[in-house]
Amino acid sequence: MTVTLADVEAARERLAAVPQIEETPVVESGTLGETVGADVRLKFEHLQKTGSFKPRGAYNTVAKRVCGDREVDRVVAASAGNHAQGVAFAATELGVDSLIVMPETAPQTKVDATRGYGAAVELVGETFAAAMTAAQEYADEPRTSFVHAYDDPAVVAGQGTLGLELLDQVPELDTVVVPVGGGGLIGGVATALRGRGADTRIVGVQAEGAATLPQSLAAGHPVDDDDPDTIADGIATGNVASLTYEIVAEHVDRVVTVSDTEIASATLWLLERSKQLVEGAAATSVAALQSDAVETAPEETVVPLLCGGNVDTATLQDVLTRALVDRNQFVTLRVRIDDRPGVLGEIARIVGDYDTNIRSVRHDRSEAGLPVGKADLVVRVTTPGAAALDGLLADIDAAGYTVRRVVPEGAGDTSGSSEANSLD
Amino acid sequence: MTVTLADVEAARERLAAVPQIEETPVVESGTLGETVGADVRLKFEHLQKTGSFKPRGAYNTVAKRVCGDREVDRVVAASAGNHAQGVAFAATELGVDSLIVMPETAPQTKVDATRGYGAAVELVGETFAAAMTAAQEYADEPRTSFVHAYDDPAVVAGQGTLGLELLDQVPELDTVVVPVGGGGLIGGVATALRGRGADTRIVGVQAEGAATLPQSLAAGHPVDDDDPDTIADGIATGNVASLTYEIVAEHVDRVVTVSDTEIASATLWLLERSKQLVEGAAATSVAALQSDAVETAPEETVVPLLCGGNVDTATLQDVLTRALVDRNQFVTLRVRIDDRPGVLGEIARIVGDYDTNIRSVRHDRSEAGLPVGKADLVVRVTTPGAAALDGLLADIDAAGYTVRRVVPEGAGDTSGSSEANSLD
Repeated sequence: MTVTLADVEAARERLAAVPQIEETPVVESGTLGETVGADVRLKFEHLQKTGSFKPRGAYNTVAKRVCGDREVDRVVAASAGNHAQGVAFAATELGVDSLIVMPETAPQTKVDATRGYGAAVELVGETFAAAMTAAQEYADEPRTSFVHAYDDPAVVAGQGTLGLELLDQVPELDTVVVPVGGGGLIGGVATALRGRGADTRIVGVQAEGAATLPQSLAAGHPVDDDDPDTIADGIATGNVASLTYEIVAEHVDRVVTVSDTEIASATLWLLERSKQLVEGAAATSVAALQSDAVETAPEETVVPLLCGGNVDTATLQDVLTRALVDRNQFVTLRVRIDDRPGVLGEIARIVGDYDTNIRSVRHDRSEAGLPVGKADLVVRVTTPGAAALDGLLADIDAAGYTVRRVVPEGAGDTSGSSEANSLD
Repeated sequence: MTVTLADVEAARERLAAVPQIEETPVVESGTLGETVGADVRLKFEHLQKTGSFKPRGAYNTVAKRVCGDREVDRVVAASAGNHAQGVAFAATELGVDSLIVMPETAPQTKVDATRGYGAAVELVGETFAAAMTAAQEYADEPRTSFVHAYDDPAVVAGQGTLGLELLDQVPELDTVVVPVGGGGLIGGVATALRGRGADTRIVGVQAEGAATLPQSLAAGHPVDDDDPDTIADGIATGNVASLTYEIVAEHVDRVVTVSDTEIASATLWLLERSKQLVEGAAATSVAALQSDAVETAPEETVVPLLCGGNVDTATLQDVLTRALVDRNQFVTLRVRIDDRPGVLGEIARIVGDYDTNIRSVRHDRSEAGLPVGKADLVVRVTTPGAAALDGLLADIDAAGYTVRRVVPEGAGDTSGSSEANSLD
């Protein structure tokens, strides 16, 4: 059982019937190109219907089930992520019911989005494994068919349509960088590119905390990771399928890994510089280039696949906060003051002089060693940058107060208070 | 002195020499189309070089000054926004120096970005007016030329290239929605569309807090607003030029306004649904459609211009926080407890059961009316949504604790503490 170029081309014909599954733009990134020293173009697949590449494979699979031999009028899947939305969308388009089983911990936004595409959603158990078991039991019911997220030739062939599309858009494609979870996307893309005879370098990227593929390739067979741990939840599958492993082993030139810090940094870079919101899984492709995990030549045409954009708003906020802290734009100050009225006003005036906003303020009268009649003013501020921060620290000092920055992670802050860790 | 189609076409030829100033994509938004009941396509001009449409006008203007009669080897401008980056980029491309004067309160990121495009940046005064005065004084120096952000036919003609480009991309264009600050963009776009004989409906949008255009049109001449106040800082100019006013009065069909709340909501919508980061000014065009300020017909092809994407990370974080609070995903709880060890652990366990993260926690022993031996635990959490919140509130209640949500803006919270207002 494998996947051929003919399968991918057949998938492309099936997908042509669905105008919502669109050709997504390829956009040059001059800035990233300068940074890595190559001709870098971003594949905006996060603008695909449902916010990821998943409907390509899901539609192809559900269409085959519904129109082929099997008599199916309901599909079932287990997913708390993009596959859920892909299957829901595909089933609704094809006029069949869909049931998506998610763990009880699934974010409400994912539940809502999946229902929004027409699926019934059932919450089962606390883990993905429990949801998967429940989904497979449903698949035993009459006229019901299970759709796996990647361990299925029809799914892989559907994802491969992205490879054909990319080759049409960028015929001079030298290197493609593909995020890898279960291997469906890279399996499809590799089948398409090799089937068309392209000698494109195919690079897979995994998160360090879910890097099953390097281990599998070293072992010569798929190796599981029972406890994947990464912010790139879209590729934290913990395993690849035999099907996709075989394709990767045969056709993929290289597999690299990136850290969560690199993924967060790439996510922010894409937001600020390319104005694109992508999820951690997608940011791995850019992180691989930025971290020099993938070497490139000046004339080389390199395309990182931005494979999805479904990131939780709370997660995004954490990434932004981290960035503001790193840039000295979100800072906690501790000012030793006489505990009398009027002092806060004076401090606030100095802070305001530097176009700096006070986000919160509290008086701490319990710091160890605090003399009677003194208090600490704990002030959290957002500043325009390091220059403003230096200026206001100097002015507070010149006004006769002792001021110090609270160092994150509690280091150097012995008060036992939580402000250093609550920069949310 | 006005602007003609020939001027816009000449600008387009000049811009053809700069490969970095690119044709930006037009992307259909099925979701927005369904919401407003029309065929909506977004013009991704926020992906333009420097993150806004400004280099179109800046390059055309600087090119004319450098190559024309005037002997110029330095340009100067006053701006703390997109115009600064547009002029800096254009001057560097054309091999002349640029000096950008900004007020001292300019965000560090804007200063850095402008320097990054090759400009010298000087910080003068606390207001834009002071920076403008200083810039105009520099322009009196030899071989130096001042570039206004919109009160210049060459700037308006350059912005008009966006209109020609859009008409080529969307020949069936029925309605274009254009954010308006000083009127340079809409003046150029209207000149291009009307010059080409298009009967496209041209709709201008302003922020309620900086709505000089409706007042000006009512008065029959440009009316200033000395104190514009809106989160859409890119269009908070406080006036339109006579030049641009005349074009708008002649060619624009309608001008509407949107509130800051509508702008923030549209910004978040574009981020979450279209995966695009835009600034407030750009979001006004989508806000105008979402707020029903602009009526549309089902078959109508409507293009909101996303004119810029340069939004401050701290501002973006505020927008996200507001959204999380609105959705019951960022909540402050006040739990009345016995002031003894172990209670926090119990509460934390219940919260964790609902996949809810504790962002900060503190003990309040000074709430008015608090019995001796009791304390309030003030816990800020992020939850997956309303269902999880209801569940954990019920469980805390069932465990024998009195728990209440702290209502934002201090309403209903008489403790005088700042937690309700410090959801940063």
